[in-house]
Amino acid sequence: MTLEGLYQQILTKRSFLCVGLDTDIRKIPSHLQDSPSGGLDFNRSIVDATHDLAIAYKPNLAFYEARGAAGWKDLAGTLEYIRNVNPDIFLIADAKRGDIGNTAGMYARTFFEELDFDAVTISPYMGRDSVEPFLEYKDKWVILLGLTSNPGAEDFQFLPLQDEGKKLYQEVIRKASTWAGPDQMMFVAGATRADLISEIRKIVPDHFLLVPGIGAQGGSLEEVVKAGSNDLVGLIVNSSRSILYADNSESFANKARANALELQQAMSMHLPD
Amino acid sequence: MTLEGLYQQILTKRSFLCVGLDTDIRKIPSHLQDSPSGGLDFNRSIVDATHDLAIAYKPNLAFYEARGAAGWKDLAGTLEYIRNVNPDIFLIADAKRGDIGNTAGMYARTFFEELDFDAVTISPYMGRDSVEPFLEYKDKWVILLGLTSNPGAEDFQFLPLQDEGKKLYQEVIRKASTWAGPDQMMFVAGATRADLISEIRKIVPDHFLLVPGIGAQGGSLEEVVKAGSNDLVGLIVNSSRSILYADNSESFANKARANALELQQAMSMHLPD
Repeated sequence: MTLEGLYQQILTKRSFLCVGLDTDIRKIPSHLQDSPSGGLDFNRSIVDATHDLAIAYKPNLAFYEARGAAGWKDLAGTLEYIRNVNPDIFLIADAKRGDIGNTAGMYARTFFEELDFDAVTISPYMGRDSVEPFLEYKDKWVILLGLTSNPGAEDFQFLPLQDEGKKLYQEVIRKASTWAGPDQMMFVAGATRADLISEIRKIVPDHFLLVPGIGAQGGSLEEVVKAGSNDLVGLIVNSSRSILYADNSESFANKARANALELQQAMSMHLPD
Repeated sequence: MTLEGLYQQILTKRSFLCVGLDTDIRKIPSHLQDSPSGGLDFNRSIVDATHDLAIAYKPNLAFYEARGAAGWKDLAGTLEYIRNVNPDIFLIADAKRGDIGNTAGMYARTFFEELDFDAVTISPYMGRDSVEPFLEYKDKWVILLGLTSNPGAEDFQFLPLQDEGKKLYQEVIRKASTWAGPDQMMFVAGATRADLISEIRKIVPDHFLLVPGIGAQGGSLEEVVKAGSNDLVGLIVNSSRSILYADNSESFANKARANALELQQAMSMHLPD
């Protein structure tokens, strides 16, 4: 998908919501847990309930790998289902991979050719040659971990560098933004502190930011938009558990839709008419 | 596997060789490429030819994921085969994962419960809570990326920190070594420069180092041993392509064994009698 295509979808749906398909078989409604197709059925129901409200889906690969070959089949089946329902949705493999050149090339082939994802999340530690094989695919995207929202982010991402006391995550984002423009690269920017999102926006004025860690609270969404939006919106905001596991009954999809709708309506207020 | 068990295996086999099972279906001998079981058959032949010379196998997950559900079946089949042939071999999932706590827990379950690996490689960028779920498994190991051997290592791993100009990789190794002792954690230490391995050995005198990037050359092996060994050897040296793809004919396993034997014999000279 192109940058223009993504922006158009945001305007059309009046949303920059990403639904994180972190489908844990132990957490889905019990009537689905015992069915061999339960994981896939759950995802289909979530997609049916949210695809007019979300511009992106983001399966975290861990939840599929945990079920081995069966999980990989569910992942492929989910992507196929989404593409049939709505071919223009932006599909993110939340994989956080990062490996040397030839191995990164294998991952790129998996996510972009075998599985038809639009984007993949990448960990920056191994540097440029771990990212480049993904950038060889036109109209596909790398979403690099910049600042993450977990407590462990403090361990290394905030280390002050000799270079003017700049933090590691700031240098990661600055340097990586020279490897690819806003038409092929985005950055993960943890949403726990809006002032840090403002800082990241200064380093990369034009790149999209993928913001995890937002619940159904309009308040923190408003802060993120204030801190992080740019002329093309520039934000994809993810919600996973608050949509997927909002209700554990057979009618779980209704509550999932209600929560997604609440987020979409809040987002709509921040979009140009 | 315990630290003591690993050391005993090294002494018994007079080897600290790890064979990297980076099985690329496009590179295996042509008579196997067209068979649905070709990938698994190839791995079985490599294991048959090397299991008395190697103390560890390290499949890089990328090469299996690239073939989707079929690749995952081959991975599981390969592990099962190795366990049957030689239950004491150390099995490393070269996955380079790193994700927030609950997701890291899913990966830990996959590699340690579903797949019976002994160890998994982890990327440090997301910090302590991305590592801890793996450490909850007794007698299982985390192998953290410290210094990698690829060109992109220069981009971030060598950034000088404000703290006395210490490099990022040095601080990563120092801090992570406080999370787990030498009985549960190892570090990846790229072998392209022996002086850097000496430096890492000073930071973690007792942890094992997993050293990639060694070919069949006795010379660089000698330098690595000089720079990195400790009282319990403290090294696992990996070789992938120089064993797997040494010969492309139907008798590929003979040449694979010959190259593994050459490495094992060179290693033997550095082990106590």
